[in-house]
Amino acid sequence: MEFEEGSQHWFMREALKEAYKAYSKDETPIGAVIVRDGKIIARGHNEKELTNDPTNHAEIAVIREASAKLGTWRLNDCDLYVTLEPCTMCAGAIIQARVGRLFIGTVDPKAGAVGSVIDVLRVDAFNHKVEVTYGILQEECSEILKNFFKELRKRKPNQK
Amino acid sequence: MEFEEGSQHWFMREALKEAYKAYSKDETPIGAVIVRDGKIIARGHNEKELTNDPTNHAEIAVIREASAKLGTWRLNDCDLYVTLEPCTMCAGAIIQARVGRLFIGTVDPKAGAVGSVIDVLRVDAFNHKVEVTYGILQEECSEILKNFFKELRKRKPNQK
Repeated sequence: MEFEEGSQHWFMREALKEAYKAYSKDETPIGAVIVRDGKIIARGHNEKELTNDPTNHAEIAVIREASAKLGTWRLNDCDLYVTLEPCTMCAGAIIQARVGRLFIGTVDPKAGAVGSVIDVLRVDAFNHKVEVTYGILQEECSEILKNFFKELRKRKPNQK
Repeated sequence: MEFEEGSQHWFMREALKEAYKAYSKDETPIGAVIVRDGKIIARGHNEKELTNDPTNHAEIAVIREASAKLGTWRLNDCDLYVTLEPCTMCAGAIIQARVGRLFIGTVDPKAGAVGSVIDVLRVDAFNHKVEVTYGILQEECSEILKNFFKELRKRKPNQK
């Protein structure tokens, strides 16, 4: 399916491309992009296993890249697109970076920290408020993860 | 005051030394160390402003360093000492890295995510459980922050 360039679906498709890069490296396939003034300024995907870095989730990778490019840790005027609902660490990083808007592909009932298990973006004491949109390309963002774990179980039948 | 080498107070003193390094760079003075088998394997301090990296908190810095050194993202057999109660991002990183034990200097009533504002380490759905100890060198860990913000207000009187 074709999406208009610069639309929310188009940006999520770009985040999905990042997720496929992770898939091709045997990493849990999650991808993200950061958009500012209608342009992608950072792309990233989960590389936790390859880099042995537990903080190397897609969201952290793009936040670090966008901050480095812009020369500031304040990303108020940026949108973050991510294929899976952020975990607690990544939702916290979104607060730290003052990300303006968050677009989520599919939810994570096991570890999602933006509504599924907890909702750290709606804690009144944290001053920064993020606008959240759920379900952009939900099916595709969910399918890639399902396929990955199905294959993983075939390869490692004893894996939980 | 002298502490026995390898004691909890001794390790927190080492984390405090890292906080002083941050202070000397005009960064909010928070420091951390990671200990394994009675030895410090990673040291770090907040460098968010200098590096323009919103994820560059003391805890993230030491987790990344310890993981790189050990060649694994699993830090189950590690203790993390930090002078201030972790924020949501850092508490989430502690879960991601499966840190075994957490030692906190002083609490953070405004943004602390290990009991003060929220408690992400006590969410049943997150499988990893961390043993937490509060109040090691509480007074010193608190004083350095108070002094920093007092000085900051003198220099920037309009700062909130």
